Amino acid sequence: MGIVLRGGAIVTSTDCYQADIRIEGEKIAAIGSQLAQAGDNVVPAEGYYIFPGGIDAHTHFDLPVSTISTADDFASGTRAAILGGTTTVIDYATQFKGETLRQGLDNWHRRAGGNCYTDYSFHMAITDWNEQVARELPWLSQEAGVTSVKLYMAYKHSMQLDDSALFQVLEGSLGCGILTCVHCENGDIVDNLTRQLRQQGKTAPAFHPLSRPPRVEQEAVNRLMILAEMTGAPVFVVHLSCREAMETVAEARLRGVRVFAETCPQYLVLDDSVYQDTTFACAGYVMSPPLRARENQAYLWNGLRIGILDTVATDHCSFNLLGQKDLGREDFSKIPNGAPGVEHRLGLLYTYGVKAGKLSLTQFVDKVATTPAKLFGLYPRKGTIAPGSDADLVLWDENSRFIIGAASHAHNVDYSAYEGIAQQGKAVHVFLRGRQVVKNGIATGDPLGKYLFRKPFLRSEV
Amino acid sequence: MGIVLRGGAIVTSTDCYQADIRIEGEKIAAIGSQLAQAGDNVVPAEGYYIFPGGIDAHTHFDLPVSTISTADDFASGTRAAILGGTTTVIDYATQFKGETLRQGLDNWHRRAGGNCYTDYSFHMAITDWNEQVARELPWLSQEAGVTSVKLYMAYKHSMQLDDSALFQVLEGSLGCGILTCVHCENGDIVDNLTRQLRQQGKTAPAFHPLSRPPRVEQEAVNRLMILAEMTGAPVFVVHLSCREAMETVAEARLRGVRVFAETCPQYLVLDDSVYQDTTFACAGYVMSPPLRARENQAYLWNGLRIGILDTVATDHCSFNLLGQKDLGREDFSKIPNGAPGVEHRLGLLYTYGVKAGKLSLTQFVDKVATTPAKLFGLYPRKGTIAPGSDADLVLWDENSRFIIGAASHAHNVDYSAYEGIAQQGKAVHVFLRGRQVVKNGIATGDPLGKYLFRKPFLRSEV
Amino acid sequence: MGIVLRGGAIVTSTDCYQADIRIEGEKIAAIGSQLAQAGDNVVPAEGYYIFPGGIDAHTHFDLPVSTISTADDFASGTRAAILGGTTTVIDYATQFKGETLRQGLDNWHRRAGGNCYTDYSFHMAITDWNEQVARELPWLSQEAGVTSVKLYMAYKHSMQLDDSALFQVLEGSLGCGILTCVHCENGDIVDNLTRQLRQQGKTAPAFHPLSRPPRVEQEAVNRLMILAEMTGAPVFVVHLSCREAMETVAEARLRGVRVFAETCPQYLVLDDSVYQDTTFACAGYVMSPPLRARENQAYLWNGLRIGILDTVATDHCSFNLLGQKDLGREDFSKIPNGAPGVEHRLGLLYTYGVKAGKLSLTQFVDKVATTPAKLFGLYPRKGTIAPGSDADLVLWDENSRFIIGAASHAHNVDYSAYEGIAQQGKAVHVFLRGRQVVKNGIATGDPLGKYLFRKPFLRSEV
Amino acid sequence: MGIVLRGGAIVTSTDCYQADIRIEGEKIAAIGSQLAQAGDNVVPAEGYYIFPGGIDAHTHFDLPVSTISTADDFASGTRAAILGGTTTVIDYATQFKGETLRQGLDNWHRRAGGNCYTDYSFHMAITDWNEQVARELPWLSQEAGVTSVKLYMAYKHSMQLDDSALFQVLEGSLGCGILTCVHCENGDIVDNLTRQLRQQGKTAPAFHPLSRPPRVEQEAVNRLMILAEMTGAPVFVVHLSCREAMETVAEARLRGVRVFAETCPQYLVLDDSVYQDTTFACAGYVMSPPLRARENQAYLWNGLRIGILDTVATDHCSFNLLGQKDLGREDFSKIPNGAPGVEHRLGLLYTYGVKAGKLSLTQFVDKVATTPAKLFGLYPRKGTIAPGSDADLVLWDENSRFIIGAASHAHNVDYSAYEGIAQQGKAVHVFLRGRQVVKNGIATGDPLGKYLFRKPFLRSEV
Ligand SMILES: [Zn+2]
Ligand SMILES: [Zn+2]
Ligand SMILES: [Zn+2]
Ligand SMILES: [Zn+2]
Ligand SMILES: [Zn+2]
Ligand SMILES: [Zn+2]
Ligand SMILES: [Zn+2]
Ligand SMILES: [Zn+2]
Repeated sequence: MGIVLRGGAIVTSTDCYQADIRIEGEKIAAIGSQLAQAGDNVVPAEGYYIFPGGIDAHTHFDLPVSTISTADDFASGTRAAILGGTTTVIDYATQFKGETLRQGLDNWHRRAGGNCYTDYSFHMAITDWNEQVARELPWLSQEAGVTSVKLYMAYKHSMQLDDSALFQVLEGSLGCGILTCVHCENGDIVDNLTRQLRQQGKTAPAFHPLSRPPRVEQEAVNRLMILAEMTGAPVFVVHLSCREAMETVAEARLRGVRVFAETCPQYLVLDDSVYQDTTFACAGYVMSPPLRARENQAYLWNGLRIGILDTVATDHCSFNLLGQKDLGREDFSKIPNGAPGVEHRLGLLYTYGVKAGKLSLTQFVDKVATTPAKLFGLYPRKGTIAPGSDADLVLWDENSRFIIGAASHAHNVDYSAYEGIAQQGKAVHVFLRGRQVVKNGIATGDPLGKYLFRKPFLRSEV
Repeated sequence: MGIVLRGGAIVTSTDCYQADIRIEGEKIAAIGSQLAQAGDNVVPAEGYYIFPGGIDAHTHFDLPVSTISTADDFASGTRAAILGGTTTVIDYATQFKGETLRQGLDNWHRRAGGNCYTDYSFHMAITDWNEQVARELPWLSQEAGVTSVKLYMAYKHSMQLDDSALFQVLEGSLGCGILTCVHCENGDIVDNLTRQLRQQGKTAPAFHPLSRPPRVEQEAVNRLMILAEMTGAPVFVVHLSCREAMETVAEARLRGVRVFAETCPQYLVLDDSVYQDTTFACAGYVMSPPLRARENQAYLWNGLRIGILDTVATDHCSFNLLGQKDLGREDFSKIPNGAPGVEHRLGLLYTYGVKAGKLSLTQFVDKVATTPAKLFGLYPRKGTIAPGSDADLVLWDENSRFIIGAASHAHNVDYSAYEGIAQQGKAVHVFLRGRQVVKNGIATGDPLGKYLFRKPFLRSEV
Repeated sequence: MGIVLRGGAIVTSTDCYQADIRIEGEKIAAIGSQLAQAGDNVVPAEGYYIFPGGIDAHTHFDLPVSTISTADDFASGTRAAILGGTTTVIDYATQFKGETLRQGLDNWHRRAGGNCYTDYSFHMAITDWNEQVARELPWLSQEAGVTSVKLYMAYKHSMQLDDSALFQVLEGSLGCGILTCVHCENGDIVDNLTRQLRQQGKTAPAFHPLSRPPRVEQEAVNRLMILAEMTGAPVFVVHLSCREAMETVAEARLRGVRVFAETCPQYLVLDDSVYQDTTFACAGYVMSPPLRARENQAYLWNGLRIGILDTVATDHCSFNLLGQKDLGREDFSKIPNGAPGVEHRLGLLYTYGVKAGKLSLTQFVDKVATTPAKLFGLYPRKGTIAPGSDADLVLWDENSRFIIGAASHAHNVDYSAYEGIAQQGKAVHVFLRGRQVVKNGIATGDPLGKYLFRKPFLRSEV
Repeated sequence: MGIVLRGGAIVTSTDCYQADIRIEGEKIAAIGSQLAQAGDNVVPAEGYYIFPGGIDAHTHFDLPVSTISTADDFASGTRAAILGGTTTVIDYATQFKGETLRQGLDNWHRRAGGNCYTDYSFHMAITDWNEQVARELPWLSQEAGVTSVKLYMAYKHSMQLDDSALFQVLEGSLGCGILTCVHCENGDIVDNLTRQLRQQGKTAPAFHPLSRPPRVEQEAVNRLMILAEMTGAPVFVVHLSCREAMETVAEARLRGVRVFAETCPQYLVLDDSVYQDTTFACAGYVMSPPLRARENQAYLWNGLRIGILDTVATDHCSFNLLGQKDLGREDFSKIPNGAPGVEHRLGLLYTYGVKAGKLSLTQFVDKVATTPAKLFGLYPRKGTIAPGSDADLVLWDENSRFIIGAASHAHNVDYSAYEGIAQQGKAVHVFLRGRQVVKNGIATGDPLGKYLFRKPFLRSEV
């Protein structure tokens, strides 16, 4: 009456070995040789890697940005996710100006509820910090199951908080097991560089990266490190994109600052040569931080390997070129920021990391599943393959090969940031809490994803 | 006909969960709930942590030093090891001047064979490098099962090699999967500082640390980093003891040098205040590198946590105060260097790391078992708890408490470097390849340890 | 008809040699042997060092702070200065909220005019940045003779500017040869640390330094370095006080940032042990940045020697303990910040720098006179001893010894920050533009100081 | 009866002003306005810069290398020097294996005596260190007037010393005011890289730089920094060529190591693109360290400006392409190392430093004259323009322009490393100790250069 995945090559963040996995209900019951019992449904898994379901801890589905919303909502977004081997997403719910955290969170529950093909949870982006909001933090962590918040050091005049607010959020996070995620770019400098470019008539999307060079990211990271040190609070740097920022994280960590960091496939695989395109098509790469010079890639891969970078998430935030990105046709600063990618995370990391010899298989699993689970309070329920954990499992065919592109992707957006790029390996079968939700590469059935109440951040677990 | 450890809290370098372990013969067959089959020997493990057997990758048993040999031979040394939860040791076999590597290795096989209570293997210390020795490297790695060598940048006029020899060993290591371990201190500087101290009449053991300050270690580490970079070979820094050296390793790793590093319990738990003792008793702490200023401890603990330091080994090298250490009563530079510790590694790291909140349980297992196994070609046979691995298992009682001391330790040496220090947690039952070799804290039976042929160093596994 | 200083040991920032100096009118006419002509007034200078008159580029005389003003006005302040060998001061004129720069400057001209015993000039502190103020910068530099401005990264809610304003001031400074001086402390963090201390009842002056630790200074310096890099503008870090900040300056300079830095005698000679005083007397040391741990002194002296630190100024800002400092008797954050010192700058630097072997005589002259003149557009009129320069000359008796103290100092304030500290060497005779204004250690005559129109900042001169 | 240079623009390392210089005998008597007395020889200097005579502290004239000697001997070398505005050279006398220091020095006195057009002195290169040599150090410094030695960390099997010898030389230098100059490259690594290249058939001169990459220089510099720190002795890094080495010097200096550094025009003006030449002509650029990637130039210029680099010397060491360099036609490692340049130092630094806005005029004088004089015990006799100093003066026409090339240079060598490069500014008239030795760009008269006994290194003078 259980399910047995027979003879796959099980990969965790530490081990790789061949064995059967026996699932009972939603959970893994046992791992070992010849576990099938009478009445079990035996799925032959020989020849597949079996990974724990991926966790993408940085998505923006159904996010309202001025007059529009992202192209992918929770339905299309999580469906793309699960096809790519990601079984859990943590999306950024946002408290907009004037709202309480509860209102912000309610809005996101309404958007996601009943629509998700993956399990899901939320970080809470705080854009309006005041004493009342401060009093909501314990509720957020202990009752709402949201144990991470997000702050912006960029986007002056909209989401940016000053250092005083950052200090106070970090101070407040300490008592209630909240991990603070931070978008690190100095928004004041970005604002002025953008103004200078505009004054010079440099308004095409190709000028976007000039408005936020690496030093602007590094400065914000450095400031955050000192805020973390002064308050004693742990922090998480999202979408770290360049060597300079990484060195600053490494230096802080070496002196004892409790900092974790995420990078994204786009910074590992793409580079700023895309901005040489003088047409508006390069608006598809208008994201923040922008793509960086090619040299940074080797540093970021090395950072993943040596552990300075802890996780890989997508920052999936899709806008159609037609009708959305083109709001900034006359002014790059008006282009909605972001790019799609939730579907390709495991594939890109496997192809350009594992197969290229830059990451081991166990490191791959660690970055896409185990460490996100541990940092964001989902472990041991998610993120590993062990008795007692949720049976979120990905059967990966390492020999599959195909070309990524907008014509074939599952994202609901009119372009692909990875158009024409080859992927090796593919999530052929995917199980979510014991149920097969992808079969032979095809998503089956209804959106069964559940909301996950996350545990408080615990230093002793990471 | 199998053995089932029932209901323990299994800890690997990534996971911690409660389950049964079923052993068949020497191997782990399955992990999960209710695995006991008819005829199985069921060992109740509820209330215990179950760790993979510890691997101490730095011991010196039965080592001849001028006219004497270390106090512990392979019998007493590995018996102490297994009582402390270490089921595998990698000892430093030495090629002395004029010998071939094969002769050096044969000598160590003769010393260890039939005497070991743990499984064992050897690194090969090369002290006489020449073209003939260069030609032995493939044999060493592929036939003798020794996939790591050791070089000394200190001990001028005896074991020290110059940079040219280091370069050539690293060059030679590349083709045959050998990892090069290096003792990093600038022996030329040590030699001169020692001379200066002697000229000033500073010959008591308390002056030993002045002859090898942190900069002397850091300089050698830095030089090694550049040799590694120039040759492309991976290197392993043994017994890293201070902040400066750690920062140099971190910086090199950040720019892509393939370097790994080990520290030892003595640098984590003891400090240079012991040298304030004006009696000869502090000869017990004459080791190289010497104990460091207390501030370094926090850096080293942090280094373990953030992954700059990969493993913890003991550098167990015991000499009796009476009859051995006192050869240097008139001149600290004649005191045989080293201290005992193989028995206390897990206990000290558990007490002052895990219980003190400096390391998580999974990190603890990683540093004492998993990473040593991976770096030194013993994985997945050793170093983890997974189906197919050797059933080397430690049942750890976290509530046991006692005081370390020479009166009660299993080491065959007349003092303890940790005299009076409290330990929390204890290896109560230990299994080696499926056989129980420690029962209720008592070593049972004969020395069953086998020699382990190690696999070549593989970057993709670490 | 000239004046000849006969046979002194002339010291410039590069040379030290014995010669006569011949003065005609306000200027030096010649230097060499036997220069006296018929009718000359010959002043025997044998046995004296002759330094160029000191330039103190950081004073606050007659500065209104909330309801009070600093204890020293321009008369008492510049009289103390000239007695200490300083013949030029550059005071910080302040544009308060709502004022134009011209109004701010007018206020300071009114305070200083006719009252100064030294020549004087102003920096312009900008506390209210807007487009109209931006348009005043060319006037400031080209017509008002003020070629440096001052910005505050601390003092939230009063003088602090955000990064956007900093960026724009730096951008604006570029075209008109203005050097931007910056008070580097992160005011947001200071504000929060102060709040935390207050909440904990830690309101005594001894807690002041806890509200602004070294990292708070370092962070601001780092941010400024990036603002300088992004705008290409030169910057000047005032009152640098600690190792961390200095290392950040050094690193930036090494990668090409155009940054200069000043430290003060209090950071070189005093340390944070004064805050162990539990009485209110230590309010005399409430200044920002606060005094630092003793270890920093060696770094700062070294920084002066190797040229990372360019100048030494006093940040003279005196408040009486009685009736002024005691406004903060119940709350250290209400104590007016600052300490006196303009009189002792040369003496302290000579005694604890030159005589202690930490600075050469030429470096001493460089830091107290030559480099301030060059950076702030007074060179070659001021800051050196060369034909054509103003005859601002200090005859220094290196054998004079005395004890500094409130009973004997010329400052108009009721305590001395250097009470009981010994000084070696003394300005015995001082000439200002060829007129003797100090004779045998006594200030003679009226306040003859003139306002100095300064030249634009020129990179090619420093 | 004196000479008066009338109305030139006098430049010292700190000042620039217009005045007359009056010379009496070999010395400067006075500086000021209208100094001419009856009977004086008045030289109109209006329109010229007047620099103190240049000091080239790194030349190799008449140096025997295996079977040959450098192309320039003291006569041709110093004649070229004086035509370029250099009035003093400090050449590297060498103690070869088996010689005493006195023998080595005698050999150089014999080579130079009576042949020099500039004043001259010697450093002493020690290549055979032993106890007897150690005992010669006080004689060297106090009697022979040689207050600097030179050690090689490269050239294994010939001039290279090990760290123990370096330590002992530094230790020995301390008591007798000797400054130790060091050629910093790791000779062991160079030796092995050279062997690897040879094994790969890469023997053309273009492969020379691959045998000594920047890390090889940086490593040696780092090791030297620690030797300096351990012994407390001051050190001088010669011919620093790359960013990495400079950063290591900067970091050491920041923590208090007493280190000084020199770079050379070739590293500032040329780059490694010359090695793309596949003909043997690029043998003319076989020097050590080799020319570096172009990016390094900006770092070195910045290093000069901010004071990390103290002096500029040429390392003039000329070999003819025909008959000398071509000894290594089949093997680059047999090409005698070095290139000519003593004539062009001031011109290149003026053109590509001062005129290019990278150095101020005073910094130019500092690097080519004043600091070399101070570091090497020639100050205040040489290196400045002040009453009492030697009248070594260069009248520089800033408007002169010409192209450097072998056809017109004064060097006695068959190629120019700067062929085709433009120079702006020229030494038109040169005075050596009051005598005009270059008139309208033509060297006049006999070799009048005297041997200079140098003073001990004095920390308080630099
Ligand atoms: Zn973001
Ligand atoms: Zn985002
Ligand atoms: Zn060792
Ligand atoms: Zn050892
Ligand atoms: Zn200030
Ligand atoms: Zn101030
Ligand atoms: Zn050299
Ligand atoms: Zn040379």
